[in-house]
Amino acid sequence: MKRIAVDAMGGDRAPEEIVRGSVAAAKRGIDVVLVGEEGRIGPLLERLGTDLPVVHATEVIEMGEDPAGAIRRKKDASISVAARLVASGEAAGMVSAGSTGAAMAAAAFLIGRLPGVARPAVASLFPPGTVVIDAGANLDCRADHLLQFAVMGTAFAQVHRGEEHPRVGLLNIGEEPGKGRNLERDAFPLLAAADGVHFVGNVEGRDIGGDRVDVIVTDGFTGNVLLKTAEGAARTVLRLILEAVSGEEYQEPLARLMPALAGLRARIDPEAVGGAFLLGVRGVVVIAHGSSSRAAIENAIVMAEEGVRGDLVGRIAAALPGGPGGGP
Amino acid sequence: MKRIAVDAMGGDRAPEEIVRGSVAAAKRGIDVVLVGEEGRIGPLLERLGTDLPVVHATEVIEMGEDPAGAIRRKKDASISVAARLVASGEAAGMVSAGSTGAAMAAAAFLIGRLPGVARPAVASLFPPGTVVIDAGANLDCRADHLLQFAVMGTAFAQVHRGEEHPRVGLLNIGEEPGKGRNLERDAFPLLAAADGVHFVGNVEGRDIGGDRVDVIVTDGFTGNVLLKTAEGAARTVLRLILEAVSGEEYQEPLARLMPALAGLRARIDPEAVGGAFLLGVRGVVVIAHGSSSRAAIENAIVMAEEGVRGDLVGRIAAALPGGPGGGP
Repeated sequence: MKRIAVDAMGGDRAPEEIVRGSVAAAKRGIDVVLVGEEGRIGPLLERLGTDLPVVHATEVIEMGEDPAGAIRRKKDASISVAARLVASGEAAGMVSAGSTGAAMAAAAFLIGRLPGVARPAVASLFPPGTVVIDAGANLDCRADHLLQFAVMGTAFAQVHRGEEHPRVGLLNIGEEPGKGRNLERDAFPLLAAADGVHFVGNVEGRDIGGDRVDVIVTDGFTGNVLLKTAEGAARTVLRLILEAVSGEEYQEPLARLMPALAGLRARIDPEAVGGAFLLGVRGVVVIAHGSSSRAAIENAIVMAEEGVRGDLVGRIAAALPGGPGGGP
Repeated sequence: MKRIAVDAMGGDRAPEEIVRGSVAAAKRGIDVVLVGEEGRIGPLLERLGTDLPVVHATEVIEMGEDPAGAIRRKKDASISVAARLVASGEAAGMVSAGSTGAAMAAAAFLIGRLPGVARPAVASLFPPGTVVIDAGANLDCRADHLLQFAVMGTAFAQVHRGEEHPRVGLLNIGEEPGKGRNLERDAFPLLAAADGVHFVGNVEGRDIGGDRVDVIVTDGFTGNVLLKTAEGAARTVLRLILEAVSGEEYQEPLARLMPALAGLRARIDPEAVGGAFLLGVRGVVVIAHGSSSRAAIENAIVMAEEGVRGDLVGRIAAALPGGPGGGP
């Protein structure tokens, strides 16, 4: 069963953009089921002249709600119904652009952790290809959590980047061993000794998007700052460049560079990545940006399907201590 | 006395680039004294056909050395001699492109903290103008440390950005109050209640270089990651753009955009900033990049002199609890 359950009600542009993105993914051959209010999803599908399976859900968790409380209270929320489809095996993965906290809570309570996983973690793919884990699930971490993140991030990079031995770096404030807080000083030897982790030592914020490291391991607070800073700085530089060449005299030469720049934009566009993965649970869970357009949702579904096809969950289970493969 | 002591022996390109940058700053009317080996500095000055006061120092602290131990052992290191000139009042500020740790240790041991300062902190100016404090001095912080950083960062932005009421934000992983680790949750109400701090709430990594906040307050680990990530992402975007337009057909239109782009580069060039400030000690201390060129050193000296002229140290002393002004 390779079905992907899509929370049609989550996200700023739900349900329309979610439904359109799902239709586009289905046209690429992916088995998609939409979860949400039939009364709103049905007419949209009809208008698009197409059909997709829909599982009805009567409730929606809003962005401001306390995630854990909302998951407990709203049994029939779209995100919860989607998570139960994964838990029961009716779907292999799920995608949501709704509240990140609600998706994490639904995954933790309804899908459940893999054996041996202390803390599920969020893995984000920074364009054009660095994995950052944890990107925001666990704000306070211990060194052994970082070790598990390294193992899960390795599996993620194997599946999504096709790297057999992805290079794993520990985010720090300098390259020399011994740098950092107690967390980094304790995690360094664990990572260096871990089987199946190709540890390249300490890396720095400037290595994101570069060619030194494939997987950056850190706590969820720092990882979230890292990603948002990199996205923000990239956007600032692009904005400053466009402002600098906004004069009339620059429009003609700028137009001639556009073919090259449009290709670049597509390559570094966060929408092309689709979403972040919650790793360490018993199913593929993709958390898309709240502002996801149809294209972002389509990409998120494609990535979820890749995770299913590449047996991301099985690889993580096999690599962790409680899993069948032993692992570190 | 507005004299600035420059560690002529610190940095990858010392002493030549340091001496040349100092000569350039002196030509702009700044009273500079060079500290280091007379036998190496004298001939350089002679070759440049100019003269500057030199205070002889026989030793140099290398980049790899344990900072605190080196400061204790090498009494006649150039950085220590420079710090003693500040401590004695013979200089009002110092600039070094040598080991950051050694400069911090020299400032702490030889110049000393201002009354009421729990932890001196590094303030960095991210081009085109966001102050980040702490940028790396204190990896583990308490909420009351962050409050002091906010006060010191405010004084810094007043002097160096000419903002009377600079907006101070707490770096976090979301804008809503209540987000973050215990550190952020504890610091938020302290910052909100602080006199003389124009607190605008939580900010995110993406706000660096933007228009929402003038001073970003965080612990030294996260601040260091923030700055290096922003610099790295900015560089990566520039590199990807240049790669995208590297084809022969793009060279002519690119050349026509160059006047605008060259101006931008000057605006966002880290060398234009010159260095980071160590705040909370009894003198102006500027820590320049290890790779500083003569232009970077010149800018660092200009910034140190601005700090002296704007009474940065006096403002911080007046704003902190132990200082004459009372403060928060």
